[in-house]
Formats: sequence, structure tokens, C-alpha cells
Amino acid sequence: MLKGYTLPRSPLGFAAATPPPPWHYSSDVVGVDYWTDPAATAALLPPGLAPDPKTNGHAALLFLDWQFTAQNDELLDPARYQYREAFVLIDAVWGDTPVMFCPYIFVDNDAALARGWAQGFPKRIGSVFQTRSFAAPSAAAAPLAAGSRFAGSLSSHGVRLAEARVTLQQRETDVAKIFSRPTANLRYFPQLAAELQDKPAVNELVLSVTDDLKIVDLWTGSAEVRMPEVAGEELHALAPRRVGLGFRCSMAYSVTDLKTLERFV
Amino acid sequence: MLKGYTLPRSPLGFAAATPPPPWHYSSDVVGVDYWTDPAATAALLPPGLAPDPKTNGHAALLFLDWQFTAQNDELLDPARYQYREAFVLIDAVWGDTPVMFCPYIFVDNDAALARGWAQGFPKRIGSVFQTRSFAAPSAAAAPLAAGSRFAGSLSSHGVRLAEARVTLQQRETDVAKIFSRPTANLRYFPQLAAELQDKPAVNELVLSVTDDLKIVDLWTGSAEVRMPEVAGEELHALAPRRVGLGFRCSMAYSVTDLKTLERFV
Amino acid sequence: MLKGYTLPRSPLGFAAATPPPPWHYSSDVVGVDYWTDPAATAALLPPGLAPDPKTNGHAALLFLDWQFTAQNDELLDPARYQYREAFVLIDAVWGDTPVMFCPYIFVDNDAALARGWAQGFPKRIGSVFQTRSFAAPSAAAAPLAAGSRFAGSLSSHGVRLAEARVTLQQRETDVAKIFSRPTANLRYFPQLAAELQDKPAVNELVLSVTDDLKIVDLWTGSAEVRMPEVAGEELHALAPRRVGLGFRCSMAYSVTDLKTLERFV
Amino acid sequence: MLKGYTLPRSPLGFAAATPPPPWHYSSDVVGVDYWTDPAATAALLPPGLAPDPKTNGHAALLFLDWQFTAQNDELLDPARYQYREAFVLIDAVWGDTPVMFCPYIFVDNDAALARGWAQGFPKRIGSVFQTRSFAAPSAAAAPLAAGSRFAGSLSSHGVRLAEARVTLQQRETDVAKIFSRPTANLRYFPQLAAELQDKPAVNELVLSVTDDLKIVDLWTGSAEVRMPEVAGEELHALAPRRVGLGFRCSMAYSVTDLKTLERFV
Repeated sequence: MLKGYTLPRSPLGFAAATPPPPWHYSSDVVGVDYWTDPAATAALLPPGLAPDPKTNGHAALLFLDWQFTAQNDELLDPARYQYREAFVLIDAVWGDTPVMFCPYIFVDNDAALARGWAQGFPKRIGSVFQTRSFAAPSAAAAPLAAGSRFAGSLSSHGVRLAEARVTLQQRETDVAKIFSRPTANLRYFPQLAAELQDKPAVNELVLSVTDDLKIVDLWTGSAEVRMPEVAGEELHALAPRRVGLGFRCSMAYSVTDLKTLERFV
Repeated sequence: MLKGYTLPRSPLGFAAATPPPPWHYSSDVVGVDYWTDPAATAALLPPGLAPDPKTNGHAALLFLDWQFTAQNDELLDPARYQYREAFVLIDAVWGDTPVMFCPYIFVDNDAALARGWAQGFPKRIGSVFQTRSFAAPSAAAAPLAAGSRFAGSLSSHGVRLAEARVTLQQRETDVAKIFSRPTANLRYFPQLAAELQDKPAVNELVLSVTDDLKIVDLWTGSAEVRMPEVAGEELHALAPRRVGLGFRCSMAYSVTDLKTLERFV
Repeated sequence: MLKGYTLPRSPLGFAAATPPPPWHYSSDVVGVDYWTDPAATAALLPPGLAPDPKTNGHAALLFLDWQFTAQNDELLDPARYQYREAFVLIDAVWGDTPVMFCPYIFVDNDAALARGWAQGFPKRIGSVFQTRSFAAPSAAAAPLAAGSRFAGSLSSHGVRLAEARVTLQQRETDVAKIFSRPTANLRYFPQLAAELQDKPAVNELVLSVTDDLKIVDLWTGSAEVRMPEVAGEELHALAPRRVGLGFRCSMAYSVTDLKTLERFV
Repeated sequence: MLKGYTLPRSPLGFAAATPPPPWHYSSDVVGVDYWTDPAATAALLPPGLAPDPKTNGHAALLFLDWQFTAQNDELLDPARYQYREAFVLIDAVWGDTPVMFCPYIFVDNDAALARGWAQGFPKRIGSVFQTRSFAAPSAAAAPLAAGSRFAGSLSSHGVRLAEARVTLQQRETDVAKIFSRPTANLRYFPQLAAELQDKPAVNELVLSVTDDLKIVDLWTGSAEVRMPEVAGEELHALAPRRVGLGFRCSMAYSVTDLKTLERFV
């Protein structure tokens, strides 16, 4: 009897790219709230989503250092399960419901990629780094304090795709200033039989469900973003026209479920 | 209108983890034919496949350095598309048809991983190396000649999973001595909605279709294999009991299609 | 006029593998204090150092996540300068002075490797991970609290060289329980001219000088260590016979100097 | 008695970053001959070298896939010893002797970095890829034939530093058209004691000695090069003004010696 939430399936289920849910996460986040070309965000929305008439063009760029664990002490195998992630979210509506949609996301870990595909996060492998905050005082420590600066960078296949810098200004207790909409994703998995390559086996609009969401130590401040034009990539179509707040926080949640909004197959 | 054979889907289709088929491949291969515990191979077969009554326990371990291209000169972006791969194949039957099934496979590239999942190859990210044969004579050249030695190694997340060494003995013109069965795979993609996590969205037994298969410069010889026991992995259940021929060749084919044998959803 | 503290030297000095000192560091540390074969530690000491008659065989294994900066905001380029490190220290004496000597150390970053060679730390490139402590509460957070568990792992070239697990038991205010001796290193750089390959250009015993050392949030507890035997490596000769305290802390210091104890060329 | 050509030195000498010479190498090479700003090449020359009055500004960009072995079958441990390299050479003279000087070079392997530093090659860690030529015919094979195209790319720390594309036009039997001068390097190793940080311990101009040099299968053709401006790097100061021949060949040699031209300490 084969086990495994994803491939590869095996007698014990240890070989799978990711252990099964529930999945528990805790992270540090460096991010920037910004506005880009409304035509570029509209062009990225899948069936079922429409541009938000009030905020189309609004986006966020986030860098996250994640620790992950499932039911088997995965946090004690950081070489296999700890990871770094960068992604963009863009405003949209599903009917009357405001959401954010994730068009691009990169991680440095295949377990995270496999979970992402199951969730509809369109993960590719990238190289992601963020300035960290360390407890021991030093010019290298980046404490959580006004004036501290944090940077994030994303590369894939040796090409820099995005960079951000954030200078902390004040602690912010109202996390809704940054995180106020649910995340919509496209679950999508193709077929390969010759006549079916444009008829995906899975094509559904879903809503991410995050249990026990906790956002702590939120700071906001000023920010800069760079998304250089790169041949063969399209992230730069979402380059900022106007940058809003930068932010830095810690965030945790668990994933045990997902809500399907619409199925297209 | 979003384009992209896989996620992420984007206006131009460049952002996708892999370009759409046809996919063209050329490689160098270092491999070993061997016999393992028949219970271990039987335990890995998905629904639809049965142990081959004549050869159950027979397996092969292969290391491949791949060059890939689709329709857009991908071979000129080797940082994004060139890759290395290691996998195991085990004998099985589908009805009366002898096949080899791929239970475990690792690549060092996300484009290859994405294509693999579409094909039913259960790819995870690994670090794969093989001794190469260079044209300029040197103690470092490993020419295709009797006595030359080649090694392959596979690691994932910093842990060595398999090693092989092959000593060439003779050129072999009959490629059927090594490659004589089609490859069966399990296309499998899960759901995440809470009540459906054990009801995959895609679960089908397929047969790999390789157009224009070319195998050249085949040499065979003696071989050694090591598959050490590793916590949290299961590849070592396929460790050799008896090692057969080692081999080294170059192989090319194209992928434009796939044959579905049975659907389980 | 060429600039650069190390190679490559260039007109602006930006191309060098590392910026010049002062170097500022802040880190999180997961470590284990242990006892190994006294013959193995004695066999690793360079000229000028002798086994500590009271504590020979005493060693420590440390995993460190480091943030680095020099004078040019290097902490805002984490892709280039942030790094992870694992090393072993062994007890020794220099005359009557108790020291710890660093025989083996691995980092995942070439800037850190270059600084290490200048300091006499014998750095090679490795893949290093440690369980991190995150602020947002979750099963994945690993808070600094009794019962929390932390792991560290070191691999090089795809082979696991060392693993440790620490379970926190109590906060410890006396950092001298863990960090009580200065670190001695061997600065060593070879010649390549045929007749001089065994006559190093640089061969000197030095003492590491750490300014503004700060160790905070020190916790101690129980620990396990694994150093498997690996072909072509020698770290496993220092495998534990008896494990002492595990610990987890944050540490910062600056490097602006180094003390030469003895020159052998 | 400690052994090891470089750090770390150990009882058996296996732990060292590189085994001792003789070192044997075989490679595939994709390169471009070009002309850059003569002020930029002149500004990179160390003491002892002067701009070549006839060819100052002439340079070459090379990408090499290397296989390495020393005396212990290192070619059978490709995960540790096989590597990829990219570098630039610029014309200069040492007195009346025409040479090429290597100002910048990147490898993806620490054993190669350690050998490079001993030779005076100013190696940093990078991510290097080149299109390979495979024996099995396919759209992905890149045969050695007129019209075949090859690309090379160099990134470091996630930023693309250089790209080249070469289209083969004709086989070239006169290797002196490409490789006609010896390579001069700067062996350089700093001190860290506070008052000596600008007084290197090693600072000498050397000439690379390559035994048994073999260059085979040389093809030349047209070429393009891109060296984008990158913050914190200086390679782009050597961006092409005019591109000459592209080339592709295989090359082997051994290193057992090095010739010192001048010592500056």
C-alpha cells in the first residue's frame, strides 16, 4: 500500500516531496506595499477573478524566511525543510470579495514547491535572501528599531529578479494595515497526452485557508523596490510605479484545508 | 489570456516553470543494471502494475547529464535549462506487457521537475554528478575506452543517497541489452481541501512515449553501487543484492505525447 | 592603483572576495560541548600548540547563522554576505595558555571563506543549516524555552558530515560555562613552485582577537551528536565519545586585528 | 605530523581543500576574443606588468567545464572535484614578454578556488554554465558543426555578471590563433594584524606553467557578449567595445609548477 501526499509514493511515505498536512509555519517577513501598472495586474488574473475596481494595480512584494514542520519534527531537519521564499500579491476581486492573487512565487526548497503546487501557489525554485534581525548587539545585528534597514533579494537561475530595501520607522499594532485580504490561487496541473496539452487536468480557483494566523512585531517604514527587466521572465511587468509602506514582521499559521471557489474542468 | 504549460501562467507564457512540449533532450548516461530485494520492488508498484513474475527485483540505477531544448533555443540558456538527473527503474508488468517503473528520481533543476511531474516522473530536487568524458587527452579525461572508469553520485538536501562506479570493458552495439522496456509512470496530483486529501485530483498510470530515441556510444563493463541507509528516505530499500552490468552511453529523444494506461479517478 | 584586501584586486576594490576589516558579525549559535578521542585531537594540533594536559579530548561542535557587515552596508546585500557556518574547536595549550584550536570549519559563502583564510580558519565550502527560533508562535517556531529542540547539520559536496540536536533545559547567565578560551588558528598559505610545494609561504600560529564580544540569550540543555564516517574526509575522527552540554545563544563581535603567536617561515 | 597542501591540515591529508599537485585537467571551452576600454585593462594590471603597447584593450572571456584529478582518482568523486569556471584574460607585457593577465575568475567549487589562490588565479565562487555538445543527435545536442550555437553564463551571488553566445563557423587547426600567450597571475595573501593589513604576506607576479597542453576540436565563429553593470562588482568595466572571434574547443593540461617573475614582499 503506497503512501505519500505527493509523489514519490512509497511504502512508508517518507520519500514524498512533502509530508501530508497539517502544515505549520513560522517566518520573518520583509515586504513592500506598492502600485504597479494596472494593465499588468489585470493581465495576470485567471478566470474567476476580476481587477479590483478600487485598487487595481496595488501589489505587495514579500520576502520570507520560513521554518516548517508537519507531524514528524520536520523543524529538526532544517536542511530538508527550512526555506526562503519571495512572492508578489496583486489586488483582485472574486465577485464582490476583495482578494489578493499570487501570480509569481519562488522558493529555495522542493518540499515547499510541492506544497505550493498543491495550494495553487505557482512556485518555482529561486535563491532568496533577507537581512535578518539578530539578538546580539552589533553593527551587523539589524535590531527591530527605528532606522534599522532590511533588504530582500530574489534570483532565479543566476539572474536577479527583484530587490527591496526597507527602513523601519515605527511599530505598527494594526496588522490590518498590511494584511487585510485573503489570498486566492490557481490550482493548475497539465496533461501531456498529445491532444490534451491545452486541457489541464486540474484548473481551479481556490482560496488559501490559514489557521491560527499570528502576525507579531510589525514595523513599517519607507521602502525601495527594484525589478529589472530580464529576458525570458515576466516579473518585471509588475515593477513599481509608486512605492508605499515597507514593513517587517514575524508571521505564523497552519494549513489544513483549502476552499475551492470555482472549478474550470 | 494567460499562457503557460504549467504554473505560473502569464501573459507571454515565459514565466512558466517549463516551456510547452515538444521537448528535446540529449544526454550522457552512466548506469548500472542490478538486482535488489523483490519484496522491495513489489512494494513500490502502483495500482495497475504487478511484479514481473520472471524478473521481479531487477532494477537499474542511472545518472544522466541532460541538455534540454524546446522551441525557443532553451539550450542557449543552460543556467535555466541544462540539468543533471539520477533515477531508479524497476521491472514490472502491465497485464502482459513488461515495463520498467520509475519509483524515485532526482533532478537539480525546477524546469525538469515540472516536466517530470507532468510525465509522472516523481521528481524531487537533488544534487547529481557524473564523471564526464572529455575530448582532450589527460589523466582527467575519462575517454570512452576499455578500463576507463566513471562514477555517479546522488545527494538530496545534503545527504548522499546513491553512488555508482562503472569500469568500461567493451563497446556494445546491441542497445537492447540495456534498454528494452518502455517506462511506466504514475501521474499523481493531490487535493488539499480537508476532506479530499486522500482523494488525488490526478491518479493515472501512464506510459512514457519517446520519439526519435537514439542511443549511441554504448559501452558496458563492471560496476559497484552503494545506497546507504538514510533516515527519512526510502531509496536504500532498493540497495543491490547483486550487481550486473555497468554501462555508459549517450542518449537522445523527444517528448510530444504520453499514453494513458489506466485512470484511477 | 589596485585596491582590495584579498584577490581579486581592482580599481575600486569592490571585486575582492571580501571587503577589508573592520568586520562586524552577529549570529545565532547551536552547539554541543563534548569529549572525543584524545589521540585524535592531539593529532590535529599544529606546531606551537600542545594537547591540554587537563582537558585533551575536549571539543565543541558549533553551527552558526551569521550576518556580516563591513563599512559599506554589507548586511543589505544578504545574498552576497549572509552565511552559515559549522566548525569544531578542540582544547589545547600554547605554552601555559589554554586555548581552543579550530581544525575544521565549513561555510556556505566565499566572502566568509576568504576572511577565514586570512584569520587562519581553515574554511571549506559546505551546506549548513540550523533550526531557527521565530517570534510568531507556532509548532514551527522553536521558541527559546525549556523543552524546545534545535538541530544543526553540516554537509559538504553532498555528503552529511555532522548533525547535532539540542534540547533546551535552562537559561544560563554565566557564558564562561561555554566560552572561556581564546581561539588559536593556523594561518597557512602554500607555494606552488615545484621545489617549494612543501615550504608554505605563510605558516603561523595566531590568536583570534574578538572586539566587543557579546553573548546573549544563552540556554543549555541535553544534546546528541552524529559524525558519520565519510570516505575522503577526516572530521569523523573527532566523533564524540561522551556528550556534555548542548547550548543555544546569540553572539556578536568585531574583528579588527589578530595576534601572531609564532611564525614558522 | 599534519598533512595537506592547503588548509585544513590533518593527519591523513584528506581534509585539505585541495589535494597536492600534480593536478590534471581536461575541459570543454566556450570563449570569445574581444576588445574593451584600454583604460580599463590598464587599470587592472598589478606591479610588474604594463599595458601591451600593441594590443592593450584586447581581452578574452572564457567559460570552461572542467574535470580534475590528482593522484587519488579524484575524477571518480565528481561531486567534490568536477567544476565550472568563467574568467577574463587581458593582454599585457612583462618587460618585453607578451602575456595575458587574469583579473577576474569564478568557479563553482572550493577545491578549484583553493588551487586557484595558490596559482594566483583570483577565484571567487560563481555559478557558471555552458551549452554542451552531446553525442546523441537531437535538437538539443549542439554538435560540433557549422551553425551550432553555444552559450555561456556567469553569475555570482544571484546576479548575472556575463553572458556570451558563439555560433560555430569553421574548424580551426591553428590553435595559436586563440591561445598564444602565457598567463600571468598575481599570488596575493593578506595579513590581518592591525598594522599590517596593507602589507600582504604574499604578493608576487607569477607565470602559469601548463604541462602537456592539448587543445583539440577547435572551432571558431561569430560571437556576442553581454557584461551588464552590476552594483558592487567591477567586471562590467571590461565590457566589449568590439567583439572578435568566438571559439569552442577542448583543452587539457597538467600543473606541477609555477614560475615566479617578481616578488614584492
